[in-house]
Amino acid sequence: MSYLIKTIQWKEDKVVMLDQRLLPNDEVYNTYEDYFGVARAIKSLVIRGAPAIGIAAAMGVALGVLGLDIRTFPEFYKKIEEICAKLAATRPTAVNLFWALERMKRICCENEALSIPDLKIRLKEEAIKILKEDISANQMMGAHGAKLLGDKTTVLTHCNAGALATGGYGTALGVIYAAQEAGKQIHVYADETRPVLQGARLTAWELQKHGIETTVICDNMAGTLMQQGKIDAAIVGADRITANGDVINKIGTYTVALLCKEHKIPFYVAAPLSTIDLSLASGAEVPIEERDPQEITHYNGQPITPSHVGIYNPAFDRTPHSLVTAIISEKGIAKPPFAPTLQTWKNP
Amino acid sequence: MSYLIKTIQWKEDKVVMLDQRLLPNDEVYNTYEDYFGVARAIKSLVIRGAPAIGIAAAMGVALGVLGLDIRTFPEFYKKIEEICAKLAATRPTAVNLFWALERMKRICCENEALSIPDLKIRLKEEAIKILKEDISANQMMGAHGAKLLGDKTTVLTHCNAGALATGGYGTALGVIYAAQEAGKQIHVYADETRPVLQGARLTAWELQKHGIETTVICDNMAGTLMQQGKIDAAIVGADRITANGDVINKIGTYTVALLCKEHKIPFYVAAPLSTIDLSLASGAEVPIEERDPQEITHYNGQPITPSHVGIYNPAFDRTPHSLVTAIISEKGIAKPPFAPTLQTWKNP
Repeated sequence: MSYLIKTIQWKEDKVVMLDQRLLPNDEVYNTYEDYFGVARAIKSLVIRGAPAIGIAAAMGVALGVLGLDIRTFPEFYKKIEEICAKLAATRPTAVNLFWALERMKRICCENEALSIPDLKIRLKEEAIKILKEDISANQMMGAHGAKLLGDKTTVLTHCNAGALATGGYGTALGVIYAAQEAGKQIHVYADETRPVLQGARLTAWELQKHGIETTVICDNMAGTLMQQGKIDAAIVGADRITANGDVINKIGTYTVALLCKEHKIPFYVAAPLSTIDLSLASGAEVPIEERDPQEITHYNGQPITPSHVGIYNPAFDRTPHSLVTAIISEKGIAKPPFAPTLQTWKNP
Repeated sequence: MSYLIKTIQWKEDKVVMLDQRLLPNDEVYNTYEDYFGVARAIKSLVIRGAPAIGIAAAMGVALGVLGLDIRTFPEFYKKIEEICAKLAATRPTAVNLFWALERMKRICCENEALSIPDLKIRLKEEAIKILKEDISANQMMGAHGAKLLGDKTTVLTHCNAGALATGGYGTALGVIYAAQEAGKQIHVYADETRPVLQGARLTAWELQKHGIETTVICDNMAGTLMQQGKIDAAIVGADRITANGDVINKIGTYTVALLCKEHKIPFYVAAPLSTIDLSLASGAEVPIEERDPQEITHYNGQPITPSHVGIYNPAFDRTPHSLVTAIISEKGIAKPPFAPTLQTWKNP
């Protein structure tokens, strides 16, 4: 089940990614031989989703050092920093990116005694380990989260926090897959998630592959479904969770959370520890990426809006912790107040 | 100002409509010579917006009787009923459609004494009168509503309740045009309004034509703007307002209203008396049109979602009167409790 979808792989010293821009119409795997390609892939949304971005960044570092003709550690480390700076500049919001780069740098420092060829191997192993750990964390969070869902549950999700957003199982959708594996009957309403339509394109595609009953709606339709009593729970992923439990996630998440509060529907957030950033006190401190207006003004190159109209295109929003019912990680389930549990999870 | 945009016209015994499906890329005017064409135009969204649908239906009736070779009133009236039934079956939610058809039937009955040729002229005059009354009502509601906006105001609107949704000035956007004419500085954030994108395509187009500063956002971005304190008021139109003040409007309106309540932002609804339906006690009684799944699954013929995925596509939702700050009509401004004022407006 967990390997049904191969989001990102390390293969013969190259990085292979499923090109998510082309889904669901075409299933194309791109092969990257240098870290510039990996950086471009992250920036252009070939790969997206906080955990998957982290894995891609780690593999980008491992790939970047492979061909280096360098003999000394200081030179090698300088080059690693250069590679990390390039990868760090791709997307500002998902903390997993920075977490993975820091981890790769730390591994490098800790293994200064190794020969350069052995250090390259060590970094490659670490990147592959990050991928494996992510899948394993997803499966654990799925097992924890599945307990929150009844035997017959209709779940709303926003954006894609599935296999495609991770190493291969999913955070929010991992909970759904785990519930299905446990014999529960789950129907998912997937917000299409404008402007990039990750819900309509990616979530629908992977839920269908897993045999989950799926209905796609426009983002503005969730409220009317809740009025009709048709939603039992909402589950989303996260790009960053701050020390107080504020959740930074795909634009529109805040509105889903507010609708849930109004309709007394539990609002769950599923994310691995690598998404939790204790260095920031609250969501107000997280930089929100604004993306190209063309994501809104055009579809597949065809114009939608009149030209020269103003556009505002924030990729993420901030959901205050007061709207979150529970945070699900590989460590278990945190309920409010979130701060002490998040602290214990990160610093056991 | 009011004639800048010619949504629908009666010209040389034909009906001319601006084809709103092609905006903003092409400004094409279609000419209809029979009521079947008018019915198809309403159903296929050549023309949309509750007041505009009412005008189109009235003109459809006037057009439908023009070529009839009928001598007696009973035969003539039977034919009118047939025409009205065809037009009534186009769209179920906007009450203006049924209101206009009833008015045309009543005019017919009240003028039974006229010759058939004179009756045809009388019906044509009535349809044109409905158009003129609508523009006039829009301008009056603009004048009333503009008083609610400060000298420098940022307004959120959803869908298109402008000149294109009416005879030619607009309900929600009429308020904005009137405020602009009164020297106020208005910046409009327009929800793109999935799936048919009336906001991105139509509202942006007509606001630009009127020289109003406009920023298009995806429907799921309004919440983050409100969190940032960037929205001073929301104004929308309506497809039906029930006796208690519940508002049936474009899908997503309910969510906008709930966000406004959370952020203590006034939520205004602008609609002519023809949109108020005292025969229904609450919004729960209004039939909600579900439209073709292709509106969500495809853009311009290109697939977005995987094939065979479930789709739910309600065109409207219900906003409870408790979320409405004021209702603006040509008669003035109603504040809660709405029922007595709506009653007085309709039965003075």
